Amino acid sequence: MSDVYIVGAGQSPFGSFPGESYRSLFETAYDRALESVDRDLNSDQIDEAYLGTLGVGGRQIGLSAPAVTEHVGLHGIPTTRVENACAASGYALRNAVAAVESGMADLVLAGGYEVMTDASSDHTKWWLGVSGETEWERLSGTTFAGVYAQMASAYLDAYDATVDDLSRVAVKNHANGAHNPNAHLGFECSLEDASNAQTVADPLTLYHCCPTTDGASAVLVASEDVASDLSETPVHVAGSGAASGAVGLFQRDSLTSIPATRTAAERAYEMADIGPNDVDFAEVHDCFAIAELLAYEDLGFCERGEAPELLREGVTNPDGDLPINTSGGLKSKGHPIGATGAGQIVEAFEQLRGDAHVQVEGAERGVTHNVGGSGGGVAVHVLERGFRGESA
Amino acid sequence: MSDVYIVGAGQSPFGSFPGESYRSLFETAYDRALESVDRDLNSDQIDEAYLGTLGVGGRQIGLSAPAVTEHVGLHGIPTTRVENACAASGYALRNAVAAVESGMADLVLAGGYEVMTDASSDHTKWWLGVSGETEWERLSGTTFAGVYAQMASAYLDAYDATVDDLSRVAVKNHANGAHNPNAHLGFECSLEDASNAQTVADPLTLYHCCPTTDGASAVLVASEDVASDLSETPVHVAGSGAASGAVGLFQRDSLTSIPATRTAAERAYEMADIGPNDVDFAEVHDCFAIAELLAYEDLGFCERGEAPELLREGVTNPDGDLPINTSGGLKSKGHPIGATGAGQIVEAFEQLRGDAHVQVEGAERGVTHNVGGSGGGVAVHVLERGFRGESA
Repeated sequence: MSDVYIVGAGQSPFGSFPGESYRSLFETAYDRALESVDRDLNSDQIDEAYLGTLGVGGRQIGLSAPAVTEHVGLHGIPTTRVENACAASGYALRNAVAAVESGMADLVLAGGYEVMTDASSDHTKWWLGVSGETEWERLSGTTFAGVYAQMASAYLDAYDATVDDLSRVAVKNHANGAHNPNAHLGFECSLEDASNAQTVADPLTLYHCCPTTDGASAVLVASEDVASDLSETPVHVAGSGAASGAVGLFQRDSLTSIPATRTAAERAYEMADIGPNDVDFAEVHDCFAIAELLAYEDLGFCERGEAPELLREGVTNPDGDLPINTSGGLKSKGHPIGATGAGQIVEAFEQLRGDAHVQVEGAERGVTHNVGGSGGGVAVHVLERGFRGESA
Repeated sequence: MSDVYIVGAGQSPFGSFPGESYRSLFETAYDRALESVDRDLNSDQIDEAYLGTLGVGGRQIGLSAPAVTEHVGLHGIPTTRVENACAASGYALRNAVAAVESGMADLVLAGGYEVMTDASSDHTKWWLGVSGETEWERLSGTTFAGVYAQMASAYLDAYDATVDDLSRVAVKNHANGAHNPNAHLGFECSLEDASNAQTVADPLTLYHCCPTTDGASAVLVASEDVASDLSETPVHVAGSGAASGAVGLFQRDSLTSIPATRTAAERAYEMADIGPNDVDFAEVHDCFAIAELLAYEDLGFCERGEAPELLREGVTNPDGDLPINTSGGLKSKGHPIGATGAGQIVEAFEQLRGDAHVQVEGAERGVTHNVGGSGGGVAVHVLERGFRGESA
């Protein structure tokens, strides 16, 4: 269990913003993170930054993270760009936690940014595929949706699950996202909308796929001393677990589980000294609907093949026993790749402080789950309300 | 001063290797790093990895670092890809140091890799420019050599310095690299060769520019306990300093200094409780000859405008008072972007253990200096021979 706290967190709106840049979007997230801190914080107190981005579109491929911290006025601090595809800022948070825990920094900015919707050049399709394995998947013609479609096909074949179960993920997450003013696709959808939408990669329809999104997220990570100075009610980073896995699906024994999620979760639970039954809510990586089902099982929220039952019974609805993706998830809130992991932290921070748009009653402990590619890298965090030992 | 040690370090040959991939090159570096450890190390002991790459050529843009650690058999460990342009693996080392110092890991792999020489598609020129600022430099037509040429022009104008002084960097570093079997351009060159070579970006000639190179480097970073188990003579990471700066030249007050180097060096010296006069040798970032002159001054080895004098007097030759780039530097050893910073650590590790190809007599303390782009991010490390307090 660490002695590290989150004292502020904020995100830009997620959506399509042709007039914004990665710098301006991050500035919005950063300003909101500063505003969320209980007491006044002088930006001179920020020692270091870890920022995640895939760099879609290829604007500033090298050094975009220092370009961002210089832009928001954090001149001269060490800034590291982290990239683990869609798990970039989940890992950025982990690195920020390590930096504080090391004593080399007392207050660290973690976050991420991505501008995807204007990737209109020949590079576009190339960029959207780069989170998959290159030689034997992408260059052989497999799209990234196609990777998850193979996992969905295998799952529907292996278990008592249907396309409607995939659609239930979309229905729930859109219903949540409809309350989130920062959501990219902040509208509701019906089971029929989702199941009958056009096929993107069989069996996945349009509503089973997250959008490509512009956005940024920022999180302020502090030592216990700094947290005591800045915050009445910080969020304790009780556990940080990460794991790698084979980047290509073809290298794995099973298509119906992501081993790196299982390992990362075990590590995070062990560090936090909890089990999956001790979790009040979670933000999980639902880049495609099947990913949310796999997450329920790999995070230990149910047994293999039981994820559809959780959805059918409403267990993961906001009023269920284990609300999941109250933010709207990647599906409705959106998936600006580098900003997604830190964006999950923003939702968990707000839930644990009672400020969420879809508030979970009595939320004391939450989990965030951020997947790179189809499971080549996963970061899981356990977050608790208040100073260590304060949460119930 | 940290309690963190380097217990092993190795690099692949640097050069043009059409038959190798980033994975196979890293495997060579990793195997050599393992072999350099004094006592037997079980790879199961490695807890985590931080690997730097710019991703030139765009093969595996997302998740290439986990693809590398999975390839060398480090299944499931958390692996973070770090990118700060040419300073990628200098920052990867810093992050590894923080991870060990945090107690979240006891033995961490840091390193980097890059395959540049086969970037033969339309992307090539695009990739080689991405370490510069995008909107106001690259897209306005400034090449990356052009960025450093502007710094060289300004320096020659401001101080008593000539094109021959730039050439002296090439002559010295090629003379060193000629002894290094891992060097890309392991041949000597004369002052006339360098000064009379064709112009790349005035006043920089071909010999004032480092090559584009394939290669990989690996470093094993350990806690004091693990270092005691594994090593007779580890290398102590006495100081780790990093700093960001404006990514674009046009955003800076001066073209004849890199402020991020000055700040990073101050931080590293402060952590190590030393000054620049306490350094026995250094590996500095000589991507272009002018960069080595600026490094002498920004690292505090001499006053402003005095760097040419150090070269003319042979102070930075292997038999001088402060040998610099005994490996051959980026100029002769080569510059596989993501592998460069960790490659400097390999040279320093070998120097401090008496195993260098061009050995500095009595080397007890060295500095490595790794620059991203033209100074948007810089990492400086102070390394000392043996366990803390053992070095003279």
